[in-house]
Amino acid sequence: MRVKPIRVALLGCGTVGREVVRLLRDQADELAARAGAPVELAGVAVRRPHKHSDLGELITSDAPGLVTRDDVDVVVEVIGGIEPARTLLLEALKGGKSVVTANKALLAEDGATLAEAADASGVDLYFEAAVAGAIPLLRPLRESLAGDRITRVAGIVNGTTNFILSAMAASGSSYGDALEEATRLGYAEADPSADVDGYDAASKAAILASLAFHTRVTAADVHCEGIRSVTAADIAAAAEIGCMIKLLAICERTPAEGDTPEGVSARVYPAMIPAAHPLASVDGAFNAVFVEAEAAGQLMFYGQGAGGAPTASAVLGDLVAVARNLVGGGRGPRESAYASLPVRPMGTVATRYHVSLEVADRAGVLASIAGEFARHGVSIAAVRQTGGGNGGDAAARLVVVTHAAPEAALASTVDVLAGLDAVRAVDSVLRVEDLGRKGVAG
Amino acid sequence: MRVKPIRVALLGCGTVGREVVRLLRDQADELAARAGAPVELAGVAVRRPHKHSDLGELITSDAPGLVTRDDVDVVVEVIGGIEPARTLLLEALKGGKSVVTANKALLAEDGATLAEAADASGVDLYFEAAVAGAIPLLRPLRESLAGDRITRVAGIVNGTTNFILSAMAASGSSYGDALEEATRLGYAEADPSADVDGYDAASKAAILASLAFHTRVTAADVHCEGIRSVTAADIAAAAEIGCMIKLLAICERTPAEGDTPEGVSARVYPAMIPAAHPLASVDGAFNAVFVEAEAAGQLMFYGQGAGGAPTASAVLGDLVAVARNLVGGGRGPRESAYASLPVRPMGTVATRYHVSLEVADRAGVLASIAGEFARHGVSIAAVRQTGGGNGGDAAARLVVVTHAAPEAALASTVDVLAGLDAVRAVDSVLRVEDLGRKGVAG
Repeated sequence: MRVKPIRVALLGCGTVGREVVRLLRDQADELAARAGAPVELAGVAVRRPHKHSDLGELITSDAPGLVTRDDVDVVVEVIGGIEPARTLLLEALKGGKSVVTANKALLAEDGATLAEAADASGVDLYFEAAVAGAIPLLRPLRESLAGDRITRVAGIVNGTTNFILSAMAASGSSYGDALEEATRLGYAEADPSADVDGYDAASKAAILASLAFHTRVTAADVHCEGIRSVTAADIAAAAEIGCMIKLLAICERTPAEGDTPEGVSARVYPAMIPAAHPLASVDGAFNAVFVEAEAAGQLMFYGQGAGGAPTASAVLGDLVAVARNLVGGGRGPRESAYASLPVRPMGTVATRYHVSLEVADRAGVLASIAGEFARHGVSIAAVRQTGGGNGGDAAARLVVVTHAAPEAALASTVDVLAGLDAVRAVDSVLRVEDLGRKGVAG
Repeated sequence: MRVKPIRVALLGCGTVGREVVRLLRDQADELAARAGAPVELAGVAVRRPHKHSDLGELITSDAPGLVTRDDVDVVVEVIGGIEPARTLLLEALKGGKSVVTANKALLAEDGATLAEAADASGVDLYFEAAVAGAIPLLRPLRESLAGDRITRVAGIVNGTTNFILSAMAASGSSYGDALEEATRLGYAEADPSADVDGYDAASKAAILASLAFHTRVTAADVHCEGIRSVTAADIAAAAEIGCMIKLLAICERTPAEGDTPEGVSARVYPAMIPAAHPLASVDGAFNAVFVEAEAAGQLMFYGQGAGGAPTASAVLGDLVAVARNLVGGGRGPRESAYASLPVRPMGTVATRYHVSLEVADRAGVLASIAGEFARHGVSIAAVRQTGGGNGGDAAARLVVVTHAAPEAALASTVDVLAGLDAVRAVDSVLRVEDLGRKGVAG
């Protein structure tokens, strides 16, 4: 057994970094027993060293110097963002250091470059903390399910938006009020765009799709819609058909059909899901991910998706894996992108839709609207009209729930509907995802 | 990259074995791409070769010969039971073959001997399929959470008993009727003892506790009670306090206290859990396991815990891991038992209790019963009396829900209660497990 300690360079010392330092110290004996060698901090690179005087000589502002130091075996990166993280990690990998990173944005934009650099040097690249915080998800996808055919990964992978949507559902409050509460409680950042516009979830979807389908999928491949336009009325409308609205990251294997080869779809948007589905009861800042595989069937993983300690737990798990490999020889699983499936454009993706219209309350309106759906090949599952009934100029509300139809066909339908004389307004168009469960109304 | 195929000897070809064969064939190209080399069947050992003529020359009845063959790299064991599995696997490990096994009984009785044999030869021993079928659970415990301190693993790990208890809760039927239905539908075996008496769950608890706490825990260390004595009245009583009855496997780290060092508790019994707890809604033959760790917080894993295809998925995942290690060098994680925590005797384990008594309906009965609880140091959380009220010789039902108390104290209390003149019968004593959630009535 190697007695030489494993030396760790930590890049970044914010909420997650502080927890990594604390766990490395508090659990030093246990980590050494599990890794087969002591795991020690060699240095911590931060932008403002004076804020971390308690770390004494470990602190440096020279990150490039730290990642190339001879006495460093592993680089742990919790800075986030594309640069300088990418340059630093590529330097580290080229220098033969293994890397553990929580950087979803970088992995989703350019994970392939990191993976190639790790391969070139024969070192490890682990990133469990990049998706769903403490929930062991990437290791199960990469390893436990390596002998199975994953068909879908769908889940709630952003705690901020889930907190906001849960609050809206619980209190009937508006998006704005719920966002304000999330900000006040520390669940949303001052600039909430990365969360509420879906970019954070899209990065995670890219990483999940890449691992699940052995295919390189980047953030740019992920169709992404956020939750800013979700209204209290939408949430009430979902409840009317026995559904909840959740911001979902969905990665699906799409079957070959005619001339179209097997492919991959990766997308993020708010969708109605059946209230009885396990994902519907995932409240607040929790994350949960459903995985479906041909032999394994349906699996669910649930836990805390963010926060200093949970994210640090995932980082430390990876760090012990790297240390075990350094002690015992061997490497963790490499990038597996052999399948190279094409990413299907959003227009071809078929889902169900919930369309809410404000229409004129007169005879023949339903017929003309139903006709437009039919003309575009979109099959209607259920229609409900409320209000109106007085004829003349009064307005009625018409809700149409469709069967699965391609996005492009639905979009054309809605375009035409919006121009109809009888349609006063298209109030909302929301997708309905059954997620493999039966029981959605309509 | 090694082009030489990885050769697999399969021991057993029942429900799981047939699926392993099918997946190895159907997914041959994908498995080769993921493992870095083709993964091929070298032979299949069964007791009655004539039943498997479709496998042609692969079939043999000579299992000992197969596991020592020079052209075999990995032995996959899906026979189950202690012998001949143990002898065969020890032969295989001594001969330098890696082993993938689904054999929970063997691992729970003598996993240490297998682990030592694997270490002596420097080969892999994987057993994801032994607990909770397709649910990736052991790899997360051994690897993802290797940098964290797990405090509790609690879950539903036996599908047969969960099916029976779900059926009883749904229909109000008796244990006997529900067992009959489970047998008819193929969820229970002709001799259901291993399931309904809790032995299967106890084996899994031993494996989970060993991994979670880095301590050797065997099936003999696990306190085990089955579900035969659970009545429709118990299930109704649970519902009265907002609970469901589930057969739980619970593995806990017990804190140091006074002269008592930190320890481990592993136990299996039917218990009331809050209906709002995620485990309460796990119905039918599904499995789900809650894991709590200091940094990660609460995690849940959910999926199919048994069946040919799900179990084969877990076996194949392990097989790809072994193959990757053979191709790339290195080994999977070894046994980690450095902590060697003492297993705490059941009598010292503190839980809450639901005690249902048939008592004489006369003044002073409650006082004398409450006095006995107090005398044994068991604090009462709630009491409810129903029936009676007519005085004289009529009987009343008294339900006592306690705060957490040591098993031994409760057992003594119940012994004394049973002897009291005012107590006609102790109808049932059931544990109440909050599982870290608040909200149990009383």
